[in-house]
Amino acid sequence: MTIHARSLARTVSVWARREESRNACLETPWCQAVSGDLEEALRKADLAILCTPVVHLSEMLGEIGDVLPGGCILTDVGSTKANICKAASEANLVSFVGSHPIAGSEKTGLENARDDLFEKCPCFVTPIETNDLANCEKVTDFWQSLDMNVMRATPEEHDQILAHVSHLPHFLVSALCHALANQPAEWSKGSGQGLRDATRIAAGSPAIWRDIAQQNRSEILKALDHFDVESKNLRRMLEENDSENLFHWLNKSKAYRESIE
Amino acid sequence: MTIHARSLARTVSVWARREESRNACLETPWCQAVSGDLEEALRKADLAILCTPVVHLSEMLGEIGDVLPGGCILTDVGSTKANICKAASEANLVSFVGSHPIAGSEKTGLENARDDLFEKCPCFVTPIETNDLANCEKVTDFWQSLDMNVMRATPEEHDQILAHVSHLPHFLVSALCHALANQPAEWSKGSGQGLRDATRIAAGSPAIWRDIAQQNRSEILKALDHFDVESKNLRRMLEENDSENLFHWLNKSKAYRESIE
Repeated sequence: MTIHARSLARTVSVWARREESRNACLETPWCQAVSGDLEEALRKADLAILCTPVVHLSEMLGEIGDVLPGGCILTDVGSTKANICKAASEANLVSFVGSHPIAGSEKTGLENARDDLFEKCPCFVTPIETNDLANCEKVTDFWQSLDMNVMRATPEEHDQILAHVSHLPHFLVSALCHALANQPAEWSKGSGQGLRDATRIAAGSPAIWRDIAQQNRSEILKALDHFDVESKNLRRMLEENDSENLFHWLNKSKAYRESIE
Repeated sequence: MTIHARSLARTVSVWARREESRNACLETPWCQAVSGDLEEALRKADLAILCTPVVHLSEMLGEIGDVLPGGCILTDVGSTKANICKAASEANLVSFVGSHPIAGSEKTGLENARDDLFEKCPCFVTPIETNDLANCEKVTDFWQSLDMNVMRATPEEHDQILAHVSHLPHFLVSALCHALANQPAEWSKGSGQGLRDATRIAAGSPAIWRDIAQQNRSEILKALDHFDVESKNLRRMLEENDSENLFHWLNKSKAYRESIE
């Protein structure tokens, strides 16, 4: 939708497994061609973007190798990067450069698409040693032409960072929701906007987040260790009624929050 | 501001310790009188609302007992209720009925006031055995006339509920912010709107939240125990790569979040 709105391509060609999805795309103004056949969909492509769930990406890379036109750059939008970049390297797909545009909300599906979804949002591009530098630049340029703020990182750095700033928050507020779901249902009537904002991301797709956990569990566990240190600090301050240190601790948290505004 | 907008009182009289605060109030259209003297401010009051930080409420109740006009109903807006209601009872203030309107944001001060701040928001009224039923009704009517959804609970029930739906979320996301503040600063550039929404409440006043912790720490610790059960569940599922149970666990979290929308 954004590619069309910004006239970045002559043709947007969609490959999708389900006919229903292909038909839905064909009805939009931004899609010029659809196919259920990978070779057909890719035939004239200069840039191919894999948007399947992260657990299917590695499998797809195997299929794609046989039908990818020479000169076509391949990237993806997966939320984890180490596994997929490793799979691409093993499949000898040298034109693959991993990406992770960070945009959207807890909502999914074509009906929640917006042509300004990517504007001013961060995007990781995660080249590996075997990548052609020109391909990295082209992938970077592509996301920048969608008005994204592109950052470079190794796939491993990306997964470490995202484990902290995205995956940890998601699983923590999911654990909070779980703990609250175990309490009397009427209690939630006493909650305010704060709880709603804090837990919005817990309404995200369980399938997507199960897959992210599977792909990045060692880094998420390390991030959880970092959280647990602070959770234990908090518990100690509450147990000892240590108001003075709690005040300083809360001040540091507030300063962090304000630094990301 | 809301009382004035809805014409609910002939006079809004403000008592404030600091002259700067009194002068700021006098410049607004909703305030008709100010005083630094408690007796003067209360002289003709039918309803008095204590809005000082929770740790000062108990102390103020002692001062107020000597100057409260007969027939004046007293309430408050404190975020914790057991301590204050106990103090009012011990000070023999039978016309005191505790309240907790749950509205506003992480922002504080007169400059963030809005006359629709309370609309459709929950408000607890927490009578105790010695309260006159008619006074409870009047306090309830008052908050309802501001378009709030009033709930009755004992002060202890209130503190238990708020420990879970308000205090626990606040301290958890503060712990998250603290853990992230300990990581490289540039990592936060890779975060999206999800982290911002999830942690917004951590920008709240450290002084207010230090005081809430002090007033309600035993209930907050119990709520933290409930969270820790789920945090341990999460850790186990990640360690064992138990995708199937993680999927169901995330589904339950999502269902809870959607139930409070």
